[in-house]
Amino acid sequence: MILTVTLNLALDITYEVGTIRWGETQAVRVAGRRAGGKGVNVARTLHQLGREVIVTDLAGGRTGALARGELATSGLIDATVEMIGESRTTIVIVEEAGEVTGFSEPGPTVSSEEWTRLLATFSRLVSRSTAVVLSGSLPPGVPVDAYGQLIGLADRAGVPAVLDSHGEPLRHGVEAGPAIVTVNEDELADVVDTDEPVGGAQELRGLGASAAVVSSGPEGLICVTDEGVWHAAPPSQMQGNPTGAGDAATAALAVGLVDRTPWEVRIADAAALSAAAVCAPLAGSFDEAVYRRLLSEVVAEELRWR
Amino acid sequence: MILTVTLNLALDITYEVGTIRWGETQAVRVAGRRAGGKGVNVARTLHQLGREVIVTDLAGGRTGALARGELATSGLIDATVEMIGESRTTIVIVEEAGEVTGFSEPGPTVSSEEWTRLLATFSRLVSRSTAVVLSGSLPPGVPVDAYGQLIGLADRAGVPAVLDSHGEPLRHGVEAGPAIVTVNEDELADVVDTDEPVGGAQELRGLGASAAVVSSGPEGLICVTDEGVWHAAPPSQMQGNPTGAGDAATAALAVGLVDRTPWEVRIADAAALSAAAVCAPLAGSFDEAVYRRLLSEVVAEELRWR
Repeated sequence: MILTVTLNLALDITYEVGTIRWGETQAVRVAGRRAGGKGVNVARTLHQLGREVIVTDLAGGRTGALARGELATSGLIDATVEMIGESRTTIVIVEEAGEVTGFSEPGPTVSSEEWTRLLATFSRLVSRSTAVVLSGSLPPGVPVDAYGQLIGLADRAGVPAVLDSHGEPLRHGVEAGPAIVTVNEDELADVVDTDEPVGGAQELRGLGASAAVVSSGPEGLICVTDEGVWHAAPPSQMQGNPTGAGDAATAALAVGLVDRTPWEVRIADAAALSAAAVCAPLAGSFDEAVYRRLLSEVVAEELRWR
Repeated sequence: MILTVTLNLALDITYEVGTIRWGETQAVRVAGRRAGGKGVNVARTLHQLGREVIVTDLAGGRTGALARGELATSGLIDATVEMIGESRTTIVIVEEAGEVTGFSEPGPTVSSEEWTRLLATFSRLVSRSTAVVLSGSLPPGVPVDAYGQLIGLADRAGVPAVLDSHGEPLRHGVEAGPAIVTVNEDELADVVDTDEPVGGAQELRGLGASAAVVSSGPEGLICVTDEGVWHAAPPSQMQGNPTGAGDAATAALAVGLVDRTPWEVRIADAAALSAAAVCAPLAGSFDEAVYRRLLSEVVAEELRWR
């Protein structure tokens, strides 16, 4: 079982419009109303891949209940720590031409008592897990080293962690020594001294991560690991909704970690799954036909040995 | 007591951002999460004016419960007909420079049983009302002559109606003979054969309305009535959030109807309140200082006698 952590669970609403008329009020079609947050997207992808997964999260209020109701409908098991605050909503607007604009609320403030309960729930579940995935931003009130604390607990249980976040929460998490850290190229320079993917990934390893993956959107992924340095990208740019593409890559990396797949295969798989996610309309799902096709087409290119 | 009808109750979420970065996901500040729908905005304005008001609406699910909870917090009494469908969400994004972009969901489908219950609730309340205000779009499932049916019921109880809608629902409502119909200049040509405000208002009277008001945004309001034809506008363009400005005008028109204020005063009041609503950040509220100042500054200009 893979345990995903979503400290800032959201109700994700996706709207479809022809072309947005800025400065006006327009009618929209609701394309989806689902539980969201990067950890949930990872969990959905793992579920679609046939993996057993549990969603750990903090959720509250009627918005939290709506999100949890949808998780249940989707067949995802949640181990939710209920909180007083009202869970956040995120809005994604998809235009006909494929342009995607998103609005992300900060989320409610978590009390120290709620955070302590989350740690207890995580501790209880982590010993039964083969890997944990820690994704996304931290809600207000949660300590900045939240991911560091969770990685410490996982480490004591002998369970490897995949970390996907940004800024200070990422830096604190990396220092706790996750098996894999994954970061967006745009966010790299916030954590290390360079925005160059290979150099940045190496710095992340220097900070404590066993392996580091940097995503450059359609240009693909690079990984810096004990086994070597690879780059993998889909053969052509995909049209669709890039929201959640990074989460699909994270899911593939977690599966590779559990299955002990060689990195050369693992990073190609992550690039293929990420591209297949772009082709699916909603974050957290992927186009299975595209994925199967790309699995045979995407080949990782070795950049150099360390 | 004034009875407002909101057939498509919404949870209105207002986001504040610096400048929207289209094609990206951005962090937003939640400026408000309130019950919405044009009828609710009218009710809030009436409540702020110190008038007794009841909100009749159709609402359902957790989103409906969130909206109703906020109505209660705001001191508004609701006579809600509960429905199976999940109430809709509307999103308003306000940029620092004042640009406002809105996204409006169609709302859930209303069953004929739910519509019948709404008619019964309306019938029960209308006999105790001094006026009814019918605002906004119709949710799927409600008959296109819904406003006509409600105006008919009000008429039998001897209670005058103010109608603010658009398209076919407006046309059907006008044919039932409301005391006042109000329409946006942009939407005029959808209902009558002209987009010229005075001519269009005259046509709306020809269709059945006793008086017709056409709003031209910052250019103000014109009314065509038995007493004459007037134009009223604020002395200068207001900076702020124009969402809900039309609803403030509708509220002022309902108050004028109840108080039997001469139309020359009534239309100036509506223009002043509408401009004061632009100066308040959230739809449904108005800036009281601006309103008091404009009440003495806005003077209706008589256009011609019929």
